[in-house]
Parts: sequence; C-alpha cells; structure tokens
Amino acid sequence: MSINNRFCSLWPAVTAAWLLAMAPAALAASDPLPSWSDGPARARIVEFVEAVTDPLGKAYVPPADRVAVFDNDGTLWSEQPLYFQAVFALDMARDMAKSAPASVPSPLLAAAAKGDQKALAELVMLTHANTTSDEFAERVRQWTRTARHPTLHRPYTELIYLPMRELLDYLAANGFSTWIVSGGGVEFMRTFSQEIYGIPPERVIGSSIKTRYEMRDGKPVIVRLPELEFLDDKEGKPVGIHKQIGKRPIAAFGNSDGDFQMLEWTTAGSGARLGMIVHHDDAEREFAYDRGSHIGKLERGLDEAGARGWTVISMKDAWKQVYAPAR
Amino acid sequence: MSINNRFCSLWPAVTAAWLLAMAPAALAASDPLPSWSDGPARARIVEFVEAVTDPLGKAYVPPADRVAVFDNDGTLWSEQPLYFQAVFALDMARDMAKSAPASVPSPLLAAAAKGDQKALAELVMLTHANTTSDEFAERVRQWTRTARHPTLHRPYTELIYLPMRELLDYLAANGFSTWIVSGGGVEFMRTFSQEIYGIPPERVIGSSIKTRYEMRDGKPVIVRLPELEFLDDKEGKPVGIHKQIGKRPIAAFGNSDGDFQMLEWTTAGSGARLGMIVHHDDAEREFAYDRGSHIGKLERGLDEAGARGWTVISMKDAWKQVYAPAR
Repeated sequence: MSINNRFCSLWPAVTAAWLLAMAPAALAASDPLPSWSDGPARARIVEFVEAVTDPLGKAYVPPADRVAVFDNDGTLWSEQPLYFQAVFALDMARDMAKSAPASVPSPLLAAAAKGDQKALAELVMLTHANTTSDEFAERVRQWTRTARHPTLHRPYTELIYLPMRELLDYLAANGFSTWIVSGGGVEFMRTFSQEIYGIPPERVIGSSIKTRYEMRDGKPVIVRLPELEFLDDKEGKPVGIHKQIGKRPIAAFGNSDGDFQMLEWTTAGSGARLGMIVHHDDAEREFAYDRGSHIGKLERGLDEAGARGWTVISMKDAWKQVYAPAR
Repeated sequence: MSINNRFCSLWPAVTAAWLLAMAPAALAASDPLPSWSDGPARARIVEFVEAVTDPLGKAYVPPADRVAVFDNDGTLWSEQPLYFQAVFALDMARDMAKSAPASVPSPLLAAAAKGDQKALAELVMLTHANTTSDEFAERVRQWTRTARHPTLHRPYTELIYLPMRELLDYLAANGFSTWIVSGGGVEFMRTFSQEIYGIPPERVIGSSIKTRYEMRDGKPVIVRLPELEFLDDKEGKPVGIHKQIGKRPIAAFGNSDGDFQMLEWTTAGSGARLGMIVHHDDAEREFAYDRGSHIGKLERGLDEAGARGWTVISMKDAWKQVYAPAR
C-alpha cells in the first residue's frame, strides 16, 4: 500500500470528524435571524438560546425540555382589523344566509360584521359545527386559498411575521419543540400550521368544540357539535399546555393580555426562562394598538413586563421587515 | 495532482454514499424484534413497516404521517388481577382512611377492593383530585418506586411486555411517532411513560379530570378538580386521538373491546393500515382472559378481527418472552 493509499484509508474517519466540526460553524456563519435589528429583543433571544443549549453552562436544558409556546393571532401573524377565523366565520355565515336565510339571523350577522365579539363567537359556533372534521378541514383549506386581507390585499397566509418565522426555525434548529397555543379553533389552525409555520398539527393547541365519533354510511367519522368544549385563552392557556404537553414550557411568546397567564406560568418555573411580548407599535408597516383595543388588548402585560423580566418586542424598532415580500 | 490524490478527493462523496448504503444493512444485521417468534404476527408487522417505509413502493407513507397508537393496560403491560392505577387508588384510599376515616366511606373501599369497577372509578376520583398537578405527579412517582405486583412480586414498571417494547423501538427507528392512547389517567401515565416506554409526556393521551389555573402563595399552580373531563375509552379513543394528534394513525394496537373504535378508526383510512390485538391466552407466563373478563373484556374484537383484516397476536405463540428478566 502506498502512502497515498494509506492516507485514503483514513478518509472516512477524517470526513466524519470534519462534518461534525463544521456543522456548528456553518450554522453560525449565516445569520439565523436576518429580519431582527440589533437591539435588546434580539440580544435577549440569542443570549437565552445560547445559555440553555450550552452543555457546560449552568442554565443548560436538555432538548426534551426545550419547549417554546407561541400565541398565534397578533404574535405570529396579523390580527387586525379582524382575526382570520372571524373573517372565515363571516364569509361562511354570508354563504349560509344566501342559501338558507333562516339559518343565520340577520341582526346577528350585522352585529358580527361590525366586530361585536359576542356575535362573532356565536357565528363561529354556527359555522364551525354540524360537519365532520374532514369536511370542515376541507372547507377551511378551500377558503384559505382565495381569501385576501381587506387593506393589505394579500392572502392571510402571507401575513405571517417574517421575524417570528425565523425565530421558530432558529429555535427548532437549536433543539426546541415549538408549539402554537392560541384562542383560535384548533381544527381551524391545523389546516395551515405545517405549511406556514412548519408546526405539525399535533403541536397546535387551541380552543375546541365538542366532537363525537359515529358511523355514517358504514364509515366512521368525527362529527363537530355546536357546543364549546375548551376555551384556550387567559387562564385556559396554562391549562391547555398542561393538558396537551404535560410539561412546563421554558419560553413563551404572546402579544395580548390573553397571553398573560401563559407567560406567567412559563416564567414562574425554575432555571432560565424567556417571556416575550410582541408590541404592535408600527402603524406604518402593520397596525398600532394595545391598551384600548377590542382585539389584542394589552394592558397588564405592558404594566408588569418590566417587573416580571419579560421583554417587550417593539415591532417598529426590533424588526427590519414585518412580512416577507409578496410572492 | 496525482491519480491517487484525485481519487482521494472523491472520498467525502464516496464515504457519504457508503454511510447511506450501509445504514439499513447495519439495522437488518441485528434483529430488532428478538422476542417475537417467527409467525404471522411478526411477519405482518415487518411486512407493514417495510411497505410504508419503502420510498419507491406504492404504500409509502412520509415520516410525518407514520403515527402508531397503543393502548396501555393489557397491551403494553399487564393489567390483571387489577390495573396499576386502581391499585394506586386503593393504596391512596387506605392511607386516607387511616389519617381521616370520614374521607373514605368504608363500604366504598370494601367494594373497590373486591374489584367493583364503579367503586374503583369513584376511588380514583377521590384520590386523584384536590391536589396540584405537581403534587399528584410526585405522589405517583414515590408510590411507583415501591409498589409490587401481588402475584408476580415485581415492580409494576418491570411488567411491561418485552416484545411490545421492542416493537415501540422498531417503529421509532423506522420514523414512526408512537403514542399511548389509554383509558388510564393521563397525568398518572405521564409520570413513567418516558422511562419505561421511551414515550414522552406529550405523546400520552388518556382520561382526564378537570383542572384549574390559580395562584397559591403568589405562585401559579394547576389544581386537579373532582370532576371527570374526558373518558378516553371506546368511542372516546378516536375522539382523543383527533383532539390531540389531529391526524389519523396508520397503525393501532389494543387488547380489549375498549380499543375497538380506535382500531376501526385507524384501519378505515386509505392506504396501508395495521390493526393488531394482543390476545391474553397465556395462563402460564401471564394471564388468560378475553370474553368473560371484567377487566380487558375482548369479544367483538375477536369476532370481527378476521373480516376487518386485523391480526390477533397470540401471546402464547407469538412471544418468546413476555417480560424482561428480573433486575
């Protein structure tokens, strides 16, 4: 065997060592959060992730416990002037009213169209029940393909916040499991969570209506009933997290007081914890709202963030870009 | 550059190709199911797994959809003469009766001790509620460490079926996500699922009682309330699966008629499907029971397995070993 051949025989080991050595460097070389400005929000995220993933650090958390939870409406995508699921319910109700006028009382429809929250909740129930789960999912998928935001004139699925999508990917690349924990309907969100966020259905927690297993034409189906089962909002969020994950998250991201208890529950645990609030202060690129808003009201969160060690993300300052460029 | 050097420069690619080519061979070399006898049950499992993982085959299923669900009591571990959680409830109730006799009516305790199912369910409620989730989990963990099976004289956690544990690992190695779907209490099972089955808390679906988020001494806790929330049995199993996974499984494993609908729901989907029933016909090494049994009654499943294409696993014939050797 020549020297060259002998050297060649070492290649597999050399290659393996090289691949292992290069992997972290390659990741570090390209910025994982390109849409985030240098500033306190970005710094806090990176500092936290580096601390919990450093196997020699005292804040180290094994991958199985790296659970990060995200509110959806207003945290991962836009919720103004009306959250996506309400727009869907209004559209469905208008369709129902056309084909069977008696099925949707017009005062209810009118109130909902003006943004009355109670009327909207009733419409959601009316339009989301009495179908099988498969039929419902198909209806949402079809509608999602054509629906456009009224003022931004883009598909809703393009109105996800690019910096938050980068954050989801950055956490996943660092061994986190990322979860959606939203007041929105769980079966509604599961139709698009994988495609737009890379989050599979089993990691979506949301509000739900009751369902029943039954046989129809000799085939088993799951039927959606017009009765609320679980409201995944405020105190409901830690309950939903405990019910479905069975572990306390170490990082939580929200934008409204509906997320307060989720952040409270998450950051009350021992060890390194991250609580962050997306603050909508960017009227130019998105919307500006907090204390007075009907949708996404943020008051207690703003008042207590400092004392609780939560970081407020100013959209205006922290994000170089809000949305990805239109396709 | 010499010819040898040029050849060397190809090594990384060659190595990568070699690693890819060798990986399946290396897996095949060591039998992943050593406790399974050659026979129809084992053959059916291997044939199914090879079919859905063959990227060129027409039964191919991408990893994200390789969902396999398992009943727990009687399917993954022994449930006779009394399932583990009932033994726990009895022990807890006896403790409660000692320290506060009024808290547990003695006729209830006596009936439960005789195996009365309704009395046992009442005892479970009585002993599982009015604690925080953290306190409850700690109580289960402590008890599990010392509890012994009355006739087999081993810790319950050693009474898992070795062939089923091999099956869980074999499926995981083939890109499946494995889930427990049990009538047992979800918070009860989550205390040991990772350790004994390698299944993390978030992949355990079970029955639950209501919980409430509240502040105690300035700290948030989740409190367990004495009210049933969800019964994960019979028709409840597909409902629980849909609620928590949001996908229809492609493989389901049970042992009693409480698992019938789970197998029905799983195998009614399109494409390759696997439904299997563990049949307790081994009085010598474990227990023999089916049609007449109070616990784990199996009647409809046995009657219809053939017509539905489900495979009955005869413990006596299919398993070389039932339990791992005592530690």
